[in-house]
Amino acid sequence: MGEIRSKFLEVYSVLKAELLHDPAFEFTDDSRQWVERMLDYNVPGGKLNRGLSVIDSYKLLKEGKELTDDEVFLACALGWCIEWLQAYFLVLDDIMDNSVTRRGQPCWFRQPKVGLIATNDGIILRNHIPRILKKHFREKPYYVDLLDLFNEVEFQTASGQMIDLITTLEGEKDLSKYSLPLHRRIVQYKTAYYSFYLPVACALLMAGENLENHINVKDILIEMGIYFQVQDDYLDCFGAPEVIGKVGTDIEDFKCSWLVVKALERSTEEQKKLLYEVYGKADEACVAKVKELYKVLDLQGVFAEYERESYEKLVKFIESHPSKAVQAVLKSFLAKIYKRLK
Amino acid sequence: MGEIRSKFLEVYSVLKAELLHDPAFEFTDDSRQWVERMLDYNVPGGKLNRGLSVIDSYKLLKEGKELTDDEVFLACALGWCIEWLQAYFLVLDDIMDNSVTRRGQPCWFRQPKVGLIATNDGIILRNHIPRILKKHFREKPYYVDLLDLFNEVEFQTASGQMIDLITTLEGEKDLSKYSLPLHRRIVQYKTAYYSFYLPVACALLMAGENLENHINVKDILIEMGIYFQVQDDYLDCFGAPEVIGKVGTDIEDFKCSWLVVKALERSTEEQKKLLYEVYGKADEACVAKVKELYKVLDLQGVFAEYERESYEKLVKFIESHPSKAVQAVLKSFLAKIYKRLK
Ligand SMILES: [Mg+2]
Ligand SMILES: [Mg+2]
Ligand SMILES: [Mg+2]
Ligand SMILES: [Mg+2]
Ligand SMILES: [Mg+2]
Ligand SMILES: [Mg+2]
Repeated sequence: MGEIRSKFLEVYSVLKAELLHDPAFEFTDDSRQWVERMLDYNVPGGKLNRGLSVIDSYKLLKEGKELTDDEVFLACALGWCIEWLQAYFLVLDDIMDNSVTRRGQPCWFRQPKVGLIATNDGIILRNHIPRILKKHFREKPYYVDLLDLFNEVEFQTASGQMIDLITTLEGEKDLSKYSLPLHRRIVQYKTAYYSFYLPVACALLMAGENLENHINVKDILIEMGIYFQVQDDYLDCFGAPEVIGKVGTDIEDFKCSWLVVKALERSTEEQKKLLYEVYGKADEACVAKVKELYKVLDLQGVFAEYERESYEKLVKFIESHPSKAVQAVLKSFLAKIYKRLK
Repeated sequence: MGEIRSKFLEVYSVLKAELLHDPAFEFTDDSRQWVERMLDYNVPGGKLNRGLSVIDSYKLLKEGKELTDDEVFLACALGWCIEWLQAYFLVLDDIMDNSVTRRGQPCWFRQPKVGLIATNDGIILRNHIPRILKKHFREKPYYVDLLDLFNEVEFQTASGQMIDLITTLEGEKDLSKYSLPLHRRIVQYKTAYYSFYLPVACALLMAGENLENHINVKDILIEMGIYFQVQDDYLDCFGAPEVIGKVGTDIEDFKCSWLVVKALERSTEEQKKLLYEVYGKADEACVAKVKELYKVLDLQGVFAEYERESYEKLVKFIESHPSKAVQAVLKSFLAKIYKRLK
């Protein structure tokens, strides 16, 4: 893994250098420096799970056959396209959420001299993806499918973000809108397509597969993505801050979290009334009351049961897939997230 | 022209209805309504010049042959893709510039309940373009070229916006950076590609042409786009507000306008000193001093000479083109902008 990671980071430097000398634009010295600083600040600093999993997946699809240098480079390039996509979403999301920190440093828009220029920087990040794809994949038979794939997944993510934004609309805090189907819809579109389906779909295209023959792979990965987000919601409240690396604020932020949805489902009228009063307030006592209610309703037990069921369902689903190589890809994903603590 | 315009607006309704029922996303009622309101507010309210010129250009390329209904629809759809692109740029530009009005109404982000959700709405607008292209052009032999074209032009526009933003950076007002090459570079990338080259390039692709054989068409259109922006800069100061429909604020906004660049070129040391003191201040007396200097330096005469020269050069350039049909397209563009007063 250390070897793949260092290879992956090497490819970042190659892609960055190419982008900083893209012949489609005449950089000024200032703008070239700006882009370089912006990329280094926003692109490579995450866990890189999404990007690395393109390479993992492609290897598994190749069933142990040694990859050529060219294949490794291309799989890394696609992995980086996903990391660029993620960086673009995060830069803009932090602006819209007025967030303070990201990946242990101030959000990009909070850097001196950046401010709302970060909006355009997000757009630049997004525009780098087709530049990378064109430079390295233009002659591949699956080039147009790659473009379609990235376009569709971006559209789905932006649409998920939209329902998240309009249901959490400031000044219209209304818990009665929150339900399991809404939670599922937000999570599926905002997170699951780009985080789970996209890396595998990239690997499948590189392996010469037609994505239309892999609708069930998509369905399984979307289910896994939803399960992953439920864990995320759970850890936001019940995880150890020193392990997850941040203090959760979903309760204060009036988030349509799996926990609040489950709490609403399981509450008596009286408990519901309390929840309506205290949820979404940046007040310690209110947050404590929500957490207390979660405990009373045994959401920890409900989550444990959900986790067990999801896991079983996913394993069964995966084992029904006709291809052992595809099964291996899906199992590798599942192993990475099952019972995770961070 | 009235007939084309009403056909064009009809196609808007068709595209909108399709987007509001895109099977790649499961809309909630709220989100479908949100998108519809957002589209109606931001997409069809401009002059539609860029969109309509795709149809004009395509007709001229067809040299008088009657277009089929299908061809008209497709040319309109591509025209709307450009209008969508423009709407996306404007929604985000207004946020970044903290603007107040756009096309005679409050900027979208200033609408109640919208705010920074407008950032994601801009992204949604952008994402609609590949949805429209996929739905109506997926089977065309030029589909991949269309995707590449829109991607490249968007990249160039965002890059031009970037140099505009970082040279006008708040707190770093420094006139010594402003020069004709910088002005040209900003204008070329931020405006000319998407406003002038893109509509003609769309028409050429629809007509079965390979864009690589039309580099000189691109060059001519970029020159025209730069000329158009110089007019825009000129009218911002010397145009009649009741004709151009707004009161210019380039001086207050410290814009890298063609006028200030020319003024810097022609100033004595003393005049330059004055300009450094008063340019970019939201103060009536300062603005008046800048305008006074522009008059003393006879920038009206300089502009008239620039306009005459540009026109002659463009006509010569156009007439050297081997295809009469392409000449007609380019002349039609030039006729629309030569000596314009708004
Ligand atoms: Mg956020
Ligand atoms: Mg958010
Ligand atoms: Mg979370
Ligand atoms: Mg503006
Ligand atoms: Mg601007
Ligand atoms: Mg102007």
